[in-house]
Amino acid sequence: MKYTIALLAGDGIGPEVINEAVKVSDAIAKKFNHEITWTPALTGACAIDAVGVPYPDETHEICMAADAVLFGAIGHPKYDNDPTAPVRPEQGLLLMRKKLGLFANVRPTFTFPSLIDNSPLKRERIEGTDLVFLRELTGGIYFGEKGRRDGGETAFDNCVYTRAEVQRLAKKGFELAMTRSKKLCCVDKANVLETSRLWRETVQAMEKDYPEVTVSYEFVDAVAMRLVQWPNSYDVLITENLFGDILTDEASVISGSMGLMPSASVGEHTSLYEPIHGSYPQATGLNIANPLATVLSAAMMFEDAFGLTEEAAAIRAVVNKSLEQGIVTEDLVAKGATAYKTSDVGDWLVANL
Amino acid sequence: MKYTIALLAGDGIGPEVINEAVKVSDAIAKKFNHEITWTPALTGACAIDAVGVPYPDETHEICMAADAVLFGAIGHPKYDNDPTAPVRPEQGLLLMRKKLGLFANVRPTFTFPSLIDNSPLKRERIEGTDLVFLRELTGGIYFGEKGRRDGGETAFDNCVYTRAEVQRLAKKGFELAMTRSKKLCCVDKANVLETSRLWRETVQAMEKDYPEVTVSYEFVDAVAMRLVQWPNSYDVLITENLFGDILTDEASVISGSMGLMPSASVGEHTSLYEPIHGSYPQATGLNIANPLATVLSAAMMFEDAFGLTEEAAAIRAVVNKSLEQGIVTEDLVAKGATAYKTSDVGDWLVANL
Ligand SMILES: CC(C)[C@H](C(=O)O)[C@@H](O)C(=O)O
Ligand SMILES: CC(C)[C@H](C(=O)O)[C@@H](O)C(=O)O
Repeated sequence: MKYTIALLAGDGIGPEVINEAVKVSDAIAKKFNHEITWTPALTGACAIDAVGVPYPDETHEICMAADAVLFGAIGHPKYDNDPTAPVRPEQGLLLMRKKLGLFANVRPTFTFPSLIDNSPLKRERIEGTDLVFLRELTGGIYFGEKGRRDGGETAFDNCVYTRAEVQRLAKKGFELAMTRSKKLCCVDKANVLETSRLWRETVQAMEKDYPEVTVSYEFVDAVAMRLVQWPNSYDVLITENLFGDILTDEASVISGSMGLMPSASVGEHTSLYEPIHGSYPQATGLNIANPLATVLSAAMMFEDAFGLTEEAAAIRAVVNKSLEQGIVTEDLVAKGATAYKTSDVGDWLVANL
Repeated sequence: MKYTIALLAGDGIGPEVINEAVKVSDAIAKKFNHEITWTPALTGACAIDAVGVPYPDETHEICMAADAVLFGAIGHPKYDNDPTAPVRPEQGLLLMRKKLGLFANVRPTFTFPSLIDNSPLKRERIEGTDLVFLRELTGGIYFGEKGRRDGGETAFDNCVYTRAEVQRLAKKGFELAMTRSKKLCCVDKANVLETSRLWRETVQAMEKDYPEVTVSYEFVDAVAMRLVQWPNSYDVLITENLFGDILTDEASVISGSMGLMPSASVGEHTSLYEPIHGSYPQATGLNIANPLATVLSAAMMFEDAFGLTEEAAAIRAVVNKSLEQGIVTEDLVAKGATAYKTSDVGDWLVANL
């Protein structure tokens, strides 16, 4: 098969980790007789520098024309300390999500046996953790009307959801639960928020269409606790945009493998795959960044966007092998062992596929 | 001195744990020659049952007339599964906060050496943790306009903050930081929300009045991560209502001493002290609930509301002693040891003051 993949390397270590994911993807394509055309495009701080906006129209067209988008990371310290600057990389991210209609952010959290002791949590608390958050990504308080009144003395942000928005996200949640343990948790704050009550009643009404799925409803504050206490008690969780922002980041640190976690944002027009880590500006150009989260994001892309299960499994298997054999960058290296460079890890993966 | 304390025992185990806190407070008062008048009042499910509303006017008047409020817990399972029921205990809580002007929720998280191994986190991650959240409690999305349009198909919640609301909360934060390590963290989502940008600019403008305090600004998602990774890197944190709801609950489980954490809500007219745990309906009437969080809330009341530092220290000392000697309820009992009853723990504390 032939695939066109938009390649948004972004800022900081983005280009370096993307490079390794491309190498591995090309090797897999060759092995399984596919043809990949990569179409690079600018986004983030590098796009602001080049053309003045963080998500140029040209980039949008390249994404729309592609079968999937592979994304690195964006962000640069020169924009960090001023969230009121007129143009910022994050705006590009939000615009991209909205314009590409990426309404569901899929964030798995799972453990790698060889990394479990890196977790801040005790082994017995996290063993077996394998959960997935579906975060709504194009609605809620992120995109509602916001502004000032009273001469700037009062600020407001509106959180808005429609039943249709909840339904399409929840549908993905039910479907995902059906392929897993058939447990779905709807995270809301229905004891306080009207939008949460809409979420809850909408999901409740959908239960009858998925009689095999057991649905629980939990308040966001309770989930923030239980995620630290018993992360392995969760399976599929669905939630709105802001709760998802907070909880998925919280969840990402429990497994001890944050630097390895992939993610997907799926939507109406296309889907986008990216590591959950940031652009680590301090490491830019040093060839030390861990490329595995991006490589695993490519695996998600093969499986979910192209339906290529075997290809995805092959990538995951070689990543596991590299971890077991200690072919890892400095963030994961065992005491006394030598760290591999970003590009060495990629080369090793390609050679061992 | 003479003190009048409104006593809101609430639901579930509330009356039982309040009872022990009253015993200990009375013993302290006797020892230090104070006179306490307790004025009981209804709130929560028991108030709904008795008079149809969760925060009756009479209760409000009793609180307004008191020097402080000691609060147990509210909530009953018959209201749990229906956040859309017309009358619910939580509404009483929100109304009480608003009417009493309790704008700052003070939530310390600290470790007890003897309980540190109860934590889901590894010992080396939490040793030395001693942080305090100041959560804004009467503004934000909890109290903004909320409702439906489009025949119920669209729901909205408005998040609103004024500069004055941010200032009075932040002032408490700066003042608290001055009494501790002079480190203040402002938690917001200023890269997305206009209310967060108001928070940030307001706090930034106040920095010059507290030149000794070092202020950091962190995004809520990053804090949700770092709280699990390095809780002992924080000291005083200030944040808005909803972020505070999520983060204080998350923080409460890291120390392994959740059942012992007290809290205060301070405001314009009075201040209120309560354990952070809930009403544990399953344990109601069994005389097994842990009263220590409520006893420690009374200690906070002596110190913060009445300025009685020595009295507070005496309560904390005897609580520590009970923990060290294993005079604890079943939730904390060591393997093989016998659990004490709620009232036995209280009796022991009184006898050992
Ligand atoms: C950068 C920021 C706008 C973004 C978000 O809040 O969605 C990020 O935190 C994320 O989760 O992808
Ligand atoms: C019961 C609920 C309304 C309340 C809140 O969200 O404030 C509770 O979670 C709390 O933190 O005191």
